[in-house]
Amino acid sequence: MNHTTPAATVGVVGGGQLGRMMGEAAGPLGVELVVSDPTPDCPAAPVVRDQIVGAFDDDDAIRALAERADVLTFEIELADPDGMERVGEETGTPIHPDPGTLRTIQDKLAQNRALAAGGLPVPTFRPIEDPADLREAGEELGWPVMLKARRGGYDGRGNRPVEGPGDAAEALESIGGAAMAEEFVDFERELAVMGVVGDGETRAYPVTETIHEAEILRESVAPARVDDDVRSRAREVAFEVLGLLEGRGVYGIELFETGAGEILVNEIAPRPHNSGHWTIEGTDCSQFEQHVRAVLGWPLGRTDARAPTVTANVLGDVDSAQPAELAGTEAILGSPEASLHWYGKREVRPLRKMGHVTLSAADGDRGALLSRARDVVGSVTFSDR
Amino acid sequence: MNHTTPAATVGVVGGGQLGRMMGEAAGPLGVELVVSDPTPDCPAAPVVRDQIVGAFDDDDAIRALAERADVLTFEIELADPDGMERVGEETGTPIHPDPGTLRTIQDKLAQNRALAAGGLPVPTFRPIEDPADLREAGEELGWPVMLKARRGGYDGRGNRPVEGPGDAAEALESIGGAAMAEEFVDFERELAVMGVVGDGETRAYPVTETIHEAEILRESVAPARVDDDVRSRAREVAFEVLGLLEGRGVYGIELFETGAGEILVNEIAPRPHNSGHWTIEGTDCSQFEQHVRAVLGWPLGRTDARAPTVTANVLGDVDSAQPAELAGTEAILGSPEASLHWYGKREVRPLRKMGHVTLSAADGDRGALLSRARDVVGSVTFSDR
Repeated sequence: MNHTTPAATVGVVGGGQLGRMMGEAAGPLGVELVVSDPTPDCPAAPVVRDQIVGAFDDDDAIRALAERADVLTFEIELADPDGMERVGEETGTPIHPDPGTLRTIQDKLAQNRALAAGGLPVPTFRPIEDPADLREAGEELGWPVMLKARRGGYDGRGNRPVEGPGDAAEALESIGGAAMAEEFVDFERELAVMGVVGDGETRAYPVTETIHEAEILRESVAPARVDDDVRSRAREVAFEVLGLLEGRGVYGIELFETGAGEILVNEIAPRPHNSGHWTIEGTDCSQFEQHVRAVLGWPLGRTDARAPTVTANVLGDVDSAQPAELAGTEAILGSPEASLHWYGKREVRPLRKMGHVTLSAADGDRGALLSRARDVVGSVTFSDR
Repeated sequence: MNHTTPAATVGVVGGGQLGRMMGEAAGPLGVELVVSDPTPDCPAAPVVRDQIVGAFDDDDAIRALAERADVLTFEIELADPDGMERVGEETGTPIHPDPGTLRTIQDKLAQNRALAAGGLPVPTFRPIEDPADLREAGEELGWPVMLKARRGGYDGRGNRPVEGPGDAAEALESIGGAAMAEEFVDFERELAVMGVVGDGETRAYPVTETIHEAEILRESVAPARVDDDVRSRAREVAFEVLGLLEGRGVYGIELFETGAGEILVNEIAPRPHNSGHWTIEGTDCSQFEQHVRAVLGWPLGRTDARAPTVTANVLGDVDSAQPAELAGTEAILGSPEASLHWYGKREVRPLRKMGHVTLSAADGDRGALLSRARDVVGSVTFSDR
């Protein structure tokens, strides 16, 4: 393998915060990024070589990306697997992860079916076509059931618990489109494992605890505060999942730990994930650097935790969209163990992910770090009230 | 202090590797960089918002930078203090460090005079106008003497030891222009302290050992392997130097440790410096992030070492200029504690700084880390022989 200048270029479909942090990680490696994104001056734009403005499913934009890249990847599930496949075949540009993997993951029902077929533990699920299916699922799985849109949901959008048969019609209507119902998992904890599939090697970062509110990830704690059995079971499940996926790259594997200490697979993200942001400060090789190495087929970096590390998201604390201006950041910048990650979004919206803060300390107690992270994030605001 | 989007913009005169690493550090803070540099597509270009192509002393380029920036800084001593001052006055843009500080540092004689006047220990020095001055300096200070061009020297260019009176005329001719002679310091070790002057606070990173060959920095070891007296004396001298300098920012203070354990100030760099590259992996807040924070007047970050850390430079190992293509980088990427920093220069020249490698390990023995760093850098090459 040779490093060359001009360096290897990675084309990324999507230029949000994940593309931005990928760009921040690529620079030191001598790797240039070009991203495509429909929003002019997207978050990644100021830190990467170039942005192509185009929809995620615009073949021309994907083609323009492929013409400038040695390899194509994506940082958003809305990337179009068919378009990438067409352009990949036309131009001979390799695509990682495999568009087929993305296609399966885009459809939550197909994802669950693939996991179940691979022998992995998933919540019991049913395809839902109409309210009658949903009522039947509730009877079988017990109320409440978790109703999920098969496509397009993220950050809690497209997921909703349904309390009983009387809510079935309205719930299905609100989800809109094809759906799936899952048994409602009364989990003890949500966990995540960031894994990376390289050229002939597979690695995983330490099991991470994720804390959600209204189905949006708020905080992560790494390594997770779980017992050794749960930790090793979570890793085992994660490696089994990674074995099912086609193509190189970083994958986020979201898990439930049930009250009985059982591990269930909740969802897979075929890309770096919010639950792995702690790896920027908490390990020697972040999930973003790892993704760049993996898609290029380079040797992978170290995945062990350097120190106990927590992250807390900075979310839009506003009632409606407005220009983003965050006040109080001296609380972050003045806190010795805190690192700021700002995503460069010009507009803040209710609960939009605008940035995150990481606290890492070699001698850190994770509970104390988490509480400091909450304090720090609690003292910044977009609201001018 | 408020974070705003669009974020604060820092205008940087110079877009070499220091500007590039500054850009890599600025992204997560939500700070955008615009750089000016005469080389189109300079090393910083792919990772910053924009490059203005223009000479370091081109007022129009500096003005264009000022028009887009909240604050101006520089990453190269060739920046023009007069031009920056003119533009600063015209546009009201603050400049850090102060152009006056740069002006003094640009002239090695003025620099030594200012240090001596401030009571700081420097090698005995003499202004040199002609060969007679140089012969006289040799008689007074003892042969050999170190002859230094007053302006424009870097990476050993412009410095040369003169063995005796017979070499005076030729030596002065080869240096060209105004010069200074210094007693030849038979040092035990070269040390450096990276300091940072913020808004009402001054901090310094741990004392670093620097290893030069042919007057080019090859390796750094942090913290330095010196006894506590030397360490505290070096810090004391560094803080005294920082107290003399005008304007906020990061400063590199190069020191000699003499055989008698005395500390002398060798040179000051009014910017991040090669001897502080280890802070990227070795501390929570690198010299580059620190510089951005300082010039913006933000709170400074932590300066303590996280772990023993060494760097080794990747220099051009070629006989003449050629397109840069580095082979063997799997030795770097495959080494678990090594991090690569590639500067994005398209052309390799003899001994040109092309990148560096950092090795950091919490339980690391510094000698062993250094020897591994040498092995790793020794196994990459630009040469196709």
